[in-house]
Amino acid sequence: MKEKLSIVKIGGNVIENTSELEKFLTLFSELEGLKILVHGGGKLATQLATKLGIKSKMVGGRRITDAETLDIITMVYAGLTNKNIVARLQAKNCNAIGLSGADGNSIQAHKRPVKHVDYGFAGDIDSVNTALLAHLLTLRLTPVFCAMSHDGKGQLLNTNADTIASELAIGLGDIFVTTLYYCFEKPGVLLNVSDDTSVVKEIDTKKYKQLLAGGVIADGMLPKLENCFHALNNKVDTVCLGNMDMLDKNDSMFTTLTL
Amino acid sequence: MKEKLSIVKIGGNVIENTSELEKFLTLFSELEGLKILVHGGGKLATQLATKLGIKSKMVGGRRITDAETLDIITMVYAGLTNKNIVARLQAKNCNAIGLSGADGNSIQAHKRPVKHVDYGFAGDIDSVNTALLAHLLTLRLTPVFCAMSHDGKGQLLNTNADTIASELAIGLGDIFVTTLYYCFEKPGVLLNVSDDTSVVKEIDTKKYKQLLAGGVIADGMLPKLENCFHALNNKVDTVCLGNMDMLDKNDSMFTTLTL
Repeated sequence: MKEKLSIVKIGGNVIENTSELEKFLTLFSELEGLKILVHGGGKLATQLATKLGIKSKMVGGRRITDAETLDIITMVYAGLTNKNIVARLQAKNCNAIGLSGADGNSIQAHKRPVKHVDYGFAGDIDSVNTALLAHLLTLRLTPVFCAMSHDGKGQLLNTNADTIASELAIGLGDIFVTTLYYCFEKPGVLLNVSDDTSVVKEIDTKKYKQLLAGGVIADGMLPKLENCFHALNNKVDTVCLGNMDMLDKNDSMFTTLTL
Repeated sequence: MKEKLSIVKIGGNVIENTSELEKFLTLFSELEGLKILVHGGGKLATQLATKLGIKSKMVGGRRITDAETLDIITMVYAGLTNKNIVARLQAKNCNAIGLSGADGNSIQAHKRPVKHVDYGFAGDIDSVNTALLAHLLTLRLTPVFCAMSHDGKGQLLNTNADTIASELAIGLGDIFVTTLYYCFEKPGVLLNVSDDTSVVKEIDTKKYKQLLAGGVIADGMLPKLENCFHALNNKVDTVCLGNMDMLDKNDSMFTTLTL
Protein backbone atom coordinates (compact mmCIF):
# COMPACT_ATOMS: atom_id res chain seq x y z
CA MET A 1 0.00 0.00 0.00
CA LYS A 2 1.23 3.47 -0.87
CA GLU A 3 2.29 5.67 2.04
CA LYS A 4 0.69 9.10 2.50
CA LEU A 5 2.62 12.27 1.68
CA SER A 6 1.64 15.88 2.42
CA ILE A 7 3.18 18.70 0.40
CA VAL A 8 2.53 22.13 1.90
CA LYS A 9 3.21 25.45 0.18
CA ILE A 10 3.30 28.65 2.23
CA GLY A 11 3.40 32.14 0.87
CA GLY A 12 5.18 35.33 1.77
CA ASN A 13 2.44 36.57 4.10
CA VAL A 14 3.26 33.78 6.57
CA ILE A 15 7.04 34.00 6.19
CA GLU A 16 7.16 37.73 6.86
CA ASN A 17 5.34 37.55 10.17
CA THR A 18 7.40 35.97 12.98
CA SER A 19 4.46 34.86 15.11
CA GLU A 20 2.44 33.61 12.11
CA LEU A 21 5.48 31.64 10.92
CA GLU A 22 5.97 30.16 14.38
CA LYS A 23 2.30 29.13 14.47
CA PHE A 24 2.57 27.63 10.99
CA LEU A 25 5.76 25.69 11.78
CA THR A 26 4.10 24.19 14.87
CA LEU A 27 1.07 23.09 12.80
CA PHE A 28 3.35 21.75 10.07
CA SER A 29 5.60 19.84 12.48
CA GLU A 30 2.50 18.21 13.99
CA LEU A 31 1.29 16.92 10.61
CA GLU A 32 1.50 13.16 10.73
CA GLY A 33 3.39 11.10 8.16
CA LEU A 34 5.74 12.05 5.36
CA LYS A 35 5.80 15.70 4.37
CA ILE A 36 7.50 18.37 2.28
CA LEU A 37 7.41 22.13 2.77
CA VAL A 38 7.73 24.61 -0.10
CA HIS A 39 8.18 28.28 0.70
CA GLY A 40 8.21 31.41 -1.37
CA GLY A 41 10.30 34.40 -0.52
CA GLY A 42 8.09 37.29 0.36
CA LYS A 43 9.09 40.87 0.86
CA LEU A 44 12.42 40.19 2.57
CA ALA A 45 14.14 39.92 -0.81
CA THR A 46 12.62 43.21 -1.96
CA GLN A 47 13.62 44.85 1.33
CA LEU A 48 17.23 43.64 0.98
CA ALA A 49 17.32 44.81 -2.65
CA THR A 50 16.08 48.25 -1.59
CA LYS A 51 18.73 48.49 1.16
CA LEU A 52 21.40 47.61 -1.42
CA GLY A 53 20.02 50.14 -3.91
CA ILE A 54 18.96 47.48 -6.41
CA LYS A 55 15.68 48.30 -8.11
CA SER A 56 13.15 45.50 -8.66
CA LYS A 57 12.22 45.35 -12.31
CA MET A 58 8.63 44.32 -12.94
CA VAL A 59 6.83 43.66 -16.23
CA GLY A 60 3.09 42.97 -16.17
CA GLY A 61 3.20 42.37 -12.41
CA ARG A 62 5.99 39.81 -12.70
CA ARG A 63 9.47 40.27 -11.35
CA ILE A 64 12.38 40.26 -13.80
CA THR A 65 15.23 38.23 -12.33
CA ASP A 66 18.45 39.90 -13.45
CA ALA A 67 21.84 38.70 -12.12
CA GLU A 68 21.78 41.04 -9.11
CA THR A 69 18.23 40.04 -8.21
CA LEU A 70 19.13 36.35 -8.52
CA ASP A 71 21.92 36.85 -5.97
CA ILE A 72 19.48 38.57 -3.60
CA ILE A 73 16.99 35.74 -4.02
CA THR A 74 19.69 33.12 -3.45
CA MET A 75 20.74 34.87 -0.25
CA VAL A 76 17.23 35.38 1.12
CA TYR A 77 15.27 32.35 -0.14
CA ALA A 78 17.97 29.64 0.02
CA GLY A 79 19.92 31.22 2.88
CA LEU A 80 18.14 33.33 5.46
CA THR A 81 14.57 32.07 5.09
CA ASN A 82 15.29 28.42 4.33
CA LYS A 83 17.89 27.85 7.05
CA ASN A 84 15.89 29.61 9.76
CA ILE A 85 12.83 27.53 8.89
CA VAL A 86 14.95 24.36 8.99
CA ALA A 87 16.52 25.25 12.36
CA ARG A 88 13.10 26.08 13.86
CA LEU A 89 11.58 22.83 12.56
CA GLN A 90 14.48 20.91 14.10
CA ALA A 91 13.53 22.45 17.46
CA LYS A 92 10.04 21.01 16.93
CA ASN A 93 11.39 17.48 16.37
CA CYS A 94 10.84 17.67 12.63
CA ASN A 95 13.99 16.46 10.86
CA ALA A 96 13.99 19.10 8.14
CA ILE A 97 16.53 19.34 5.32
CA GLY A 98 16.63 22.55 3.29
CA LEU A 99 16.93 22.22 -0.47
CA SER A 100 17.08 24.31 -3.60
CA GLY A 101 16.45 22.55 -6.89
CA ALA A 102 20.23 22.39 -7.41
CA ASP A 103 20.73 20.29 -4.27
CA GLY A 104 20.85 16.64 -5.25
CA ASN A 105 19.71 17.79 -8.69
CA SER A 106 16.24 17.70 -7.15
CA ILE A 107 14.55 20.12 -9.59
CA GLN A 108 16.01 20.69 -13.02
CA ALA A 109 14.67 23.50 -15.20
CA HIS A 110 15.52 25.65 -18.19
CA LYS A 111 15.77 29.41 -18.40
CA ARG A 112 12.46 30.74 -19.71
CA PRO A 113 12.88 31.50 -23.43
CA VAL A 114 12.62 35.15 -24.42
CA LYS A 115 9.45 35.85 -26.40
CA HIS A 116 7.92 39.27 -25.77
CA VAL A 117 9.52 39.63 -22.35
CA ASP A 118 12.94 38.57 -21.05
CA TYR A 119 12.23 37.34 -17.51
CA GLY A 120 15.96 36.86 -16.89
CA PHE A 121 16.99 33.99 -14.64
CA ALA A 122 13.50 32.52 -14.30
CA GLY A 123 13.23 28.74 -14.57
CA ASP A 124 10.52 26.53 -16.04
CA ILE A 125 10.69 23.05 -14.54
CA ASP A 126 11.73 20.06 -16.69
CA SER A 127 12.11 17.28 -14.13
CA VAL A 128 11.92 16.36 -10.47
CA ASN A 129 14.38 13.85 -8.97
CA THR A 130 11.68 11.67 -7.43
CA ALA A 131 14.08 8.81 -6.63
CA LEU A 132 16.19 11.05 -4.40
CA LEU A 133 13.18 12.64 -2.70
CA ALA A 134 11.64 9.23 -2.04
CA HIS A 135 14.96 8.16 -0.46
CA LEU A 136 15.08 11.25 1.76
CA LEU A 137 11.45 10.76 2.83
CA THR A 138 12.17 7.10 3.61
CA LEU A 139 14.95 8.29 5.92
CA ARG A 140 12.18 10.25 7.72
CA LEU A 141 13.64 13.56 6.55
CA THR A 142 11.35 16.48 5.71
CA PRO A 143 12.58 18.36 2.62
CA VAL A 144 12.08 22.14 2.84
CA PHE A 145 12.24 23.68 -0.63
CA CYS A 146 12.92 27.29 -1.45
CA ALA A 147 11.64 28.64 -4.76
CA MET A 148 14.77 27.93 -6.79
CA SER A 149 15.78 25.41 -9.44
CA HIS A 150 18.88 25.00 -11.62
CA ASP A 151 19.57 24.24 -15.27
CA GLY A 152 22.19 21.51 -14.76
CA LYS A 153 24.78 23.74 -16.43
CA GLY A 154 25.73 25.68 -13.32
CA GLN A 155 22.96 28.27 -13.38
CA LEU A 156 20.54 28.79 -10.48
CA LEU A 157 17.03 29.88 -11.53
CA ASN A 158 14.22 31.69 -9.71
CA THR A 159 11.16 29.43 -9.88
CA ASN A 160 7.54 29.93 -8.82
CA ALA A 161 6.87 28.21 -5.47
CA ASP A 162 3.31 27.17 -6.44
CA THR A 163 4.71 25.39 -9.49
CA ILE A 164 7.48 23.73 -7.47
CA ALA A 165 4.85 22.39 -5.04
CA SER A 166 2.61 21.00 -7.79
CA GLU A 167 5.51 19.52 -9.80
CA LEU A 168 6.84 17.80 -6.65
CA ALA A 169 3.35 16.44 -5.94
CA ILE A 170 2.95 15.23 -9.52
CA GLY A 171 6.43 13.66 -9.57
CA LEU A 172 5.85 11.85 -6.28
CA GLY A 173 2.23 10.86 -7.07
CA ASP A 174 3.41 7.53 -8.49
CA ILE A 175 5.08 6.54 -5.23
CA PHE A 176 2.87 8.13 -2.55
CA VAL A 177 -0.78 9.03 -1.98
CA THR A 178 -0.15 12.74 -2.23
CA THR A 179 -2.11 15.64 -0.76
CA LEU A 180 -1.10 19.12 -1.85
CA TYR A 181 -1.89 22.02 0.51
CA TYR A 182 -1.77 25.60 -0.73
CA CYS A 183 -1.77 27.98 2.24
CA PHE A 184 -2.77 31.52 1.36
CA GLU A 185 -4.57 34.49 2.91
CA LYS A 186 -8.14 33.32 2.30
CA PRO A 187 -9.81 30.39 4.10
CA GLY A 188 -10.51 28.71 0.73
CA VAL A 189 -12.40 29.24 -2.52
CA LEU A 190 -15.14 31.75 -1.69
CA LEU A 191 -18.61 31.99 -3.26
CA ASN A 192 -18.52 35.67 -2.32
CA VAL A 193 -15.00 37.16 -2.29
CA SER A 194 -15.92 39.66 0.41
CA ASP A 195 -17.36 37.00 2.75
CA ASP A 196 -14.74 34.77 4.38
CA THR A 197 -17.46 32.42 5.66
CA SER A 198 -18.65 31.57 2.12
CA VAL A 199 -16.03 28.83 1.66
CA VAL A 200 -16.85 26.15 -0.92
CA LYS A 201 -15.87 23.06 1.07
CA GLU A 202 -15.61 20.56 -1.75
CA ILE A 203 -14.92 21.00 -5.44
CA ASP A 204 -14.79 18.12 -7.90
CA THR A 205 -14.54 18.33 -11.70
CA LYS A 206 -18.29 18.79 -12.13
CA LYS A 207 -18.55 21.49 -9.44
CA TYR A 208 -15.45 23.20 -10.87
CA LYS A 209 -17.18 23.52 -14.27
CA GLN A 210 -20.30 24.89 -12.59
CA LEU A 211 -18.30 27.48 -10.64
CA LEU A 212 -16.40 28.49 -13.78
CA ALA A 213 -19.67 28.84 -15.74
CA GLY A 214 -21.20 30.87 -12.90
CA GLY A 215 -18.25 33.27 -12.90
CA VAL A 216 -17.49 32.51 -9.23
CA ILE A 217 -13.86 31.74 -10.02
CA ALA A 218 -12.10 34.80 -11.34
CA ASP A 219 -8.87 36.82 -11.24
CA GLY A 220 -6.01 35.24 -9.31
CA MET A 221 -8.11 32.20 -8.42
CA LEU A 222 -8.38 31.13 -12.07
CA PRO A 223 -4.71 30.12 -12.62
CA LYS A 224 -4.55 28.75 -9.07
CA LEU A 225 -7.43 26.32 -9.63
CA GLU A 226 -6.18 25.48 -13.11
CA ASN A 227 -2.88 24.50 -11.49
CA CYS A 228 -4.74 22.42 -8.85
CA PHE A 229 -6.73 20.46 -11.45
CA HIS A 230 -3.58 19.99 -13.51
CA ALA A 231 -2.09 18.28 -10.43
CA LEU A 232 -5.25 16.21 -9.81
CA ASN A 233 -5.20 15.08 -13.43
CA ASN A 234 -1.60 13.95 -12.94
CA LYS A 235 -1.77 11.47 -10.07
CA VAL A 236 -2.11 13.92 -7.17
CA ASP A 237 -4.81 12.55 -4.87
CA THR A 238 -6.19 15.67 -3.17
CA VAL A 239 -5.53 19.42 -3.22
CA CYS A 240 -6.50 21.66 -0.31
CA LEU A 241 -6.78 25.44 -0.49
CA GLY A 242 -7.06 27.64 2.58
CA ASN A 243 -5.15 29.43 5.30
CA MET A 244 -2.78 27.58 7.63
CA ASP A 245 -5.60 26.53 9.97
CA MET A 246 -6.49 23.81 7.47
CA LEU A 247 -3.43 21.86 8.69
CA ASP A 248 -5.26 21.49 12.01
CA LYS A 249 -7.65 18.63 11.32
CA ASN A 250 -10.23 20.06 13.75
CA ASP A 251 -10.71 23.11 11.58
CA SER A 252 -12.93 22.35 8.61
CA MET A 253 -12.98 25.77 6.94
CA PHE A 254 -11.06 25.11 3.75
CA THR A 255 -11.62 23.91 0.20
CA THR A 256 -10.85 20.32 -0.77
CA LEU A 257 -10.39 19.60 -4.47
CA THR A 258 -10.63 16.15 -6.01
CA LEU A 259 -11.34 14.87 -9.51
CA MET B 1 36.40 -3.49 3.61
CA LYS B 2 35.82 0.16 4.45
CA GLU B 3 35.20 2.50 1.53
CA LYS B 4 37.42 5.56 1.04
CA LEU B 5 36.11 9.05 1.82
CA SER B 6 37.77 12.39 1.06
CA ILE B 7 36.80 15.48 3.05
CA VAL B 8 38.10 18.71 1.51
CA LYS B 9 38.06 22.10 3.19
CA ILE B 10 38.58 25.25 1.11
CA GLY B 11 39.16 28.70 2.46
CA GLY B 12 37.99 32.16 1.53
CA ASN B 13 40.94 32.83 -0.81
CA VAL B 14 39.60 30.23 -3.25
CA ILE B 15 35.92 31.16 -2.89
CA GLU B 16 36.50 34.86 -3.58
CA ASN B 17 38.27 34.29 -6.89
CA THR B 18 35.94 33.12 -9.70
CA SER B 19 38.62 31.44 -11.81
CA GLU B 20 40.34 29.86 -8.79
CA LEU B 21 36.98 28.52 -7.59
CA GLU B 22 36.23 27.12 -11.04
CA LYS B 23 39.63 25.39 -11.11
CA PHE B 24 39.07 24.02 -7.63
CA LEU B 25 35.57 22.73 -8.41
CA THR B 26 36.91 20.90 -11.46
CA LEU B 27 39.68 19.26 -9.39
CA PHE B 28 37.18 18.41 -6.64
CA SER B 29 34.61 16.94 -9.03
CA GLU B 30 37.33 14.72 -10.55
CA LEU B 31 38.30 13.27 -7.14
CA GLU B 32 37.38 9.61 -7.23
CA GLY B 33 35.13 7.99 -4.64
CA LEU B 34 32.99 9.39 -1.84
CA LYS B 35 33.65 12.99 -0.89
CA ILE B 36 32.48 15.95 1.18
CA LEU B 37 33.29 19.63 0.65
CA VAL B 38 33.45 22.16 3.49
CA HIS B 39 33.71 25.83 2.64
CA GLY B 40 34.29 28.92 4.70
CA GLY B 41 32.80 32.24 3.82
CA GLY B 42 35.53 34.65 2.90
CA LYS B 43 35.23 38.36 2.39
CA LEU B 44 31.81 38.30 0.68
CA ALA B 45 30.08 38.41 4.07
CA THR B 46 32.19 41.35 5.20
CA GLN B 47 31.53 43.14 1.89
CA LEU B 48 27.76 42.66 2.25
CA ALA B 49 27.88 43.83 5.87
CA THR B 50 29.76 46.97 4.79
CA LYS B 51 27.20 47.69 2.04
CA LEU B 52 24.41 47.36 4.61
CA GLY B 53 26.24 49.58 7.09
CA ILE B 54 26.79 46.79 9.61
CA LYS B 55 30.15 46.99 11.32
CA SER B 56 32.12 43.78 11.88
CA LYS B 57 33.02 43.50 15.55
CA MET B 58 36.35 41.78 16.16
CA VAL B 59 37.99 40.81 19.46
CA GLY B 60 41.53 39.42 19.40
CA GLY B 61 41.31 38.83 15.64
CA ARG B 62 38.06 36.85 15.97
CA ARG B 63 34.73 37.96 14.61
CA ILE B 64 31.88 38.52 17.05
CA THR B 65 28.69 37.05 15.60
CA ASP B 66 25.84 39.32 16.71
CA ALA B 67 22.30 38.78 15.39
CA GLU B 68 22.78 41.05 12.36
CA THR B 69 26.08 39.37 11.47
CA LEU B 70 24.50 35.92 11.82
CA ASP B 71 21.85 36.92 9.25
CA ILE B 72 24.56 38.12 6.87
CA ILE B 73 26.49 34.88 7.31
CA THR B 74 23.34 32.81 6.76
CA MET B 75 22.64 34.71 3.53
CA VAL B 76 26.18 34.53 2.18
CA TYR B 77 27.51 31.18 3.47
CA ALA B 78 24.34 29.04 3.32
CA GLY B 79 22.74 30.93 0.45
CA LEU B 80 24.89 32.65 -2.16
CA THR B 81 28.15 30.73 -1.77
CA ASN B 82 26.75 27.29 -0.98
CA LYS B 83 24.08 27.20 -3.69
CA ASN B 84 26.38 28.52 -6.41
CA ILE B 85 29.00 25.91 -5.53
CA VAL B 86 26.31 23.19 -5.60
CA ALA B 87 24.94 24.34 -8.98
CA ARG B 88 28.44 24.48 -10.48
CA LEU B 89 29.32 21.01 -9.15
CA GLN B 90 26.10 19.67 -10.67
CA ALA B 91 27.32 20.97 -14.03
CA LYS B 92 30.48 18.90 -13.51
CA ASN B 93 28.47 15.68 -12.91
CA CYS B 94 29.06 15.82 -9.17
CA ASN B 95 25.73 15.24 -7.39
CA ALA B 96 26.26 17.87 -4.69
CA ILE B 97 23.81 18.61 -1.89
CA GLY B 98 24.34 21.79 0.12
CA LEU B 99 23.98 21.57 3.88
CA SER B 100 24.23 23.67 6.99
CA GLY B 101 24.50 21.85 10.30
CA ALA B 102 20.76 22.43 10.83
CA ASP B 103 19.86 20.43 7.70
CA GLY B 104 19.05 16.87 8.70
CA ASN B 105 20.40 17.81 12.15
CA SER B 106 23.78 17.05 10.61
CA ILE B 107 25.90 19.12 13.02
CA GLN B 108 24.59 20.01 16.45
CA ALA B 109 26.45 22.52 18.60
CA HIS B 110 26.03 24.82 21.58
CA LYS B 111 26.49 28.55 21.74
CA ARG B 112 29.99 29.24 23.03
CA PRO B 113 29.73 30.10 26.75
CA VAL B 114 30.70 33.64 27.69
CA LYS B 115 33.97 33.74 29.65
CA HIS B 116 36.11 36.79 29.00
CA VAL B 117 34.61 37.43 25.58
CA ASP B 118 31.04 37.02 24.30
CA TYR B 119 31.49 35.65 20.79
CA GLY B 120 27.73 35.87 20.17
CA PHE B 121 26.16 33.25 17.95
CA ALA B 122 29.32 31.14 17.61
CA GLY B 123 28.87 27.39 17.93
CA ASP B 124 31.11 24.72 19.41
CA ILE B 125 30.27 21.31 17.96
CA ASP B 126 28.67 18.61 20.13
CA SER B 127 27.77 15.92 17.60
CA VAL B 128 27.78 14.94 13.94
CA ASN B 129 24.88 12.94 12.46
CA THR B 130 27.13 10.28 10.94
CA ALA B 131 24.22 7.91 10.17
CA LEU B 132 22.56 10.50 7.92
CA LEU B 133 25.82 11.47 6.21
CA ALA B 134 26.69 7.82 5.58
CA HIS B 135 23.23 7.38 4.00
CA LEU B 136 23.69 10.42 1.76
CA LEU B 137 27.16 9.23 0.71
CA THR B 138 25.76 5.77 -0.05
CA LEU B 139 23.25 7.46 -2.37
CA ARG B 140 26.33 8.83 -4.19
CA LEU B 141 25.53 12.37 -3.05
CA THR B 142 28.33 14.81 -2.24
CA PRO B 143 27.50 16.91 0.83
CA VAL B 144 28.71 20.53 0.57
CA PHE B 145 28.85 22.10 4.03
CA CYS B 146 28.87 25.78 4.82
CA ALA B 147 30.38 26.91 8.11
CA MET B 148 27.18 26.82 10.15
CA SER B 149 25.71 24.56 12.81
CA HIS B 150 22.60 24.76 15.01
CA ASP B 151 21.76 24.19 18.66
CA GLY B 152 18.68 22.00 18.17
CA LYS B 153 16.57 24.69 19.83
CA GLY B 154 16.00 26.75 16.69
CA GLN B 155 19.21 28.77 16.73
CA LEU B 156 21.69 28.78 13.84
CA LEU B 157 25.33 29.20 14.86
CA ASN B 158 28.43 30.42 13.04
CA THR B 159 31.02 27.63 13.23
CA ASN B 160 34.65 27.41 12.17
CA ALA B 161 34.99 25.58 8.83
CA ASP B 162 38.29 23.87 9.80
CA THR B 163 36.59 22.42 12.87
CA ILE B 164 33.54 21.31 10.87
CA ALA B 165 35.87 19.47 8.46
CA SER B 166 37.80 17.71 11.22
CA GLU B 167 34.67 16.82 13.24
CA LEU B 168 33.04 15.36 10.11
CA ALA B 169 36.21 13.36 9.41
CA ILE B 170 36.38 12.10 13.00
CA GLY B 171 32.68 11.23 13.06
CA LEU B 172 32.89 9.32 9.80
CA GLY B 173 36.26 7.68 10.60
CA ASP B 174 34.47 4.63 12.05
CA ILE B 175 32.64 3.94 8.79
CA PHE B 176 35.11 5.06 6.10
CA VAL B 177 38.87 5.25 5.52
CA THR B 178 38.92 9.01 5.73
CA THR B 179 41.40 11.48 4.23
CA LEU B 180 41.08 15.10 5.29
CA TYR B 181 42.41 17.77 2.91
CA TYR B 182 42.99 21.32 4.12
CA CYS B 183 43.43 23.62 1.12
CA PHE B 184 45.08 26.90 1.96
CA GLU B 185 47.42 29.47 0.36
CA LYS B 186 50.68 27.63 0.99
CA PRO B 187 51.77 24.42 -0.79
CA GLY B 188 52.14 22.69 2.61
CA VAL B 189 54.11 22.88 5.84
CA LEU B 190 57.28 24.79 4.98
CA LEU B 191 60.73 24.38 6.53
CA ASN B 192 61.34 28.00 5.56
CA VAL B 193 58.17 30.13 5.51
CA SER B 194 59.56 32.38 2.79
CA ASP B 195 60.45 29.48 0.49
CA ASP B 196 57.43 27.75 -1.11
CA THR B 197 59.65 24.92 -2.37
CA SER B 198 60.67 23.91 1.17
CA VAL B 199 57.58 21.71 1.67
CA VAL B 200 57.89 18.97 4.28
CA LYS B 201 56.33 16.10 2.32
CA GLU B 202 55.60 13.73 5.18
CA ILE B 203 55.03 14.32 8.85
CA ASP B 204 54.34 11.55 11.34
CA THR B 205 54.14 11.85 15.13
CA LYS B 206 57.93 11.57 15.54
CA LYS B 207 58.67 14.14 12.84
CA TYR B 208 55.96 16.43 14.27
CA LYS B 209 57.73 16.45 17.64
CA GLN B 210 61.06 17.18 15.93
CA LEU B 211 59.58 20.09 13.98
CA LEU B 212 57.92 21.47 17.11
CA ALA B 213 61.17 21.21 19.07
CA GLY B 214 63.08 22.88 16.21
CA GLY B 215 60.63 25.81 16.18
CA VAL B 216 59.74 25.15 12.52
CA ILE B 217 56.02 25.12 13.32
CA ALA B 218 54.89 28.46 14.62
CA ASP B 219 52.11 31.05 14.50
CA GLY B 220 48.98 30.02 12.58
CA MET B 221 50.48 26.65 11.71
CA LEU B 222 50.55 25.57 15.38
CA PRO B 223 46.77 25.29 15.95
CA LYS B 224 46.33 23.94 12.40
CA LEU B 225 48.70 21.01 12.99
CA GLU B 226 47.33 20.47 16.48
CA ASN B 227 43.88 20.12 14.89
CA CYS B 228 45.30 17.71 12.27
CA PHE B 229 46.89 15.42 14.87
CA HIS B 230 43.71 15.58 16.94
CA ALA B 231 41.90 14.16 13.88
CA LEU B 232 44.62 11.52 13.28
CA ASN B 233 44.36 10.44 16.92
CA ASN B 234 40.60 10.01 16.45
CA LYS B 235 40.31 7.52 13.58
CA VAL B 236 41.09 9.84 10.65
CA ASP B 237 43.49 7.97 8.37
CA THR B 238 45.43 10.75 6.64
CA VAL B 239 45.49 14.55 6.66
CA CYS B 240 46.88 16.55 3.72
CA LEU B 241 47.86 20.20 3.85
CA GLY B 242 48.56 22.28 0.79
CA ASN B 243 47.02 24.36 -1.96
CA MET B 244 44.33 22.99 -4.26
CA ASP B 245 46.89 21.39 -6.59
CA MET B 246 47.25 18.57 -4.07
CA LEU B 247 43.88 17.23 -5.28
CA ASP B 248 45.60 16.49 -8.59
CA LYS B 249 47.40 13.23 -7.89
CA ASN B 250 50.22 14.13 -10.32
CA ASP B 251 51.25 17.04 -8.17
CA SER B 252 53.29 15.89 -5.19
CA MET B 253 54.00 19.25 -3.56
CA PHE B 254 51.99 19.02 -0.37
CA THR B 255 52.31 17.76 3.19
CA THR B 256 50.89 14.38 4.20
CA LEU B 257 50.31 13.81 7.90
CA THR B 258 49.89 10.38 9.48
CA LEU B 259 50.34 9.02 13.00
